[in-house]
Amino acid sequence: MIVRIITVHVKPEHIEAFEAETVRNHEGSVAEPGVLRFDVLRDGDQRGRYLLYEVYRDQAAVEAHKETVHYERWKDAVADMMAKPRESTTCEVVAPADPDRW
Amino acid sequence: MIVRIITVHVKPEHIEAFEAETVRNHEGSVAEPGVLRFDVLRDGDQRGRYLLYEVYRDQAAVEAHKETVHYERWKDAVADMMAKPRESTTCEVVAPADPDRW
Repeated sequence: MIVRIITVHVKPEHIEAFEAETVRNHEGSVAEPGVLRFDVLRDGDQRGRYLLYEVYRDQAAVEAHKETVHYERWKDAVADMMAKPRESTTCEVVAPADPDRW
Repeated sequence: MIVRIITVHVKPEHIEAFEAETVRNHEGSVAEPGVLRFDVLRDGDQRGRYLLYEVYRDQAAVEAHKETVHYERWKDAVADMMAKPRESTTCEVVAPADPDRW
């Protein structure tokens, strides 16, 4: 598995629209066969900061996600909502090691 | 749900022991009724950096976790393995909103 954690800072006036677009992206993403999780989180202490927790079965699934209509739509829709460019961290899984436990 | 993301920087000579202790903590934690996820991740770009992705049903589950034997053991075992104090971020869940999808 490959885990990608994306951090997004959203302009205050776009928070509601950002959440709606990102929930839509979540719904499309979790329907992809290679996506094990696609959690959308709101930082409890820092308003406007969001985390996406994306878990993929393998690198092919990461690439496939970027070709989907829901990802393209999300990327375009939220581009101007961000206060600064989004950041990502890519992680390997230590536990749970079994893909069936994701 | 409440999501806590813990970032840990481990001294190079303790990486193997840290992973072993943290997998043990993972196994105990996912057996707790209020713990929905307890993922252990290794940063792919920054050796020695680890993330714990902890998802709790509610605040009571967060408190209950801190009372467990496996957490106490982990906290004591890894204290001297860290290169600096661990950091945590607490998040609210935007999606999936249904606890059964965690």
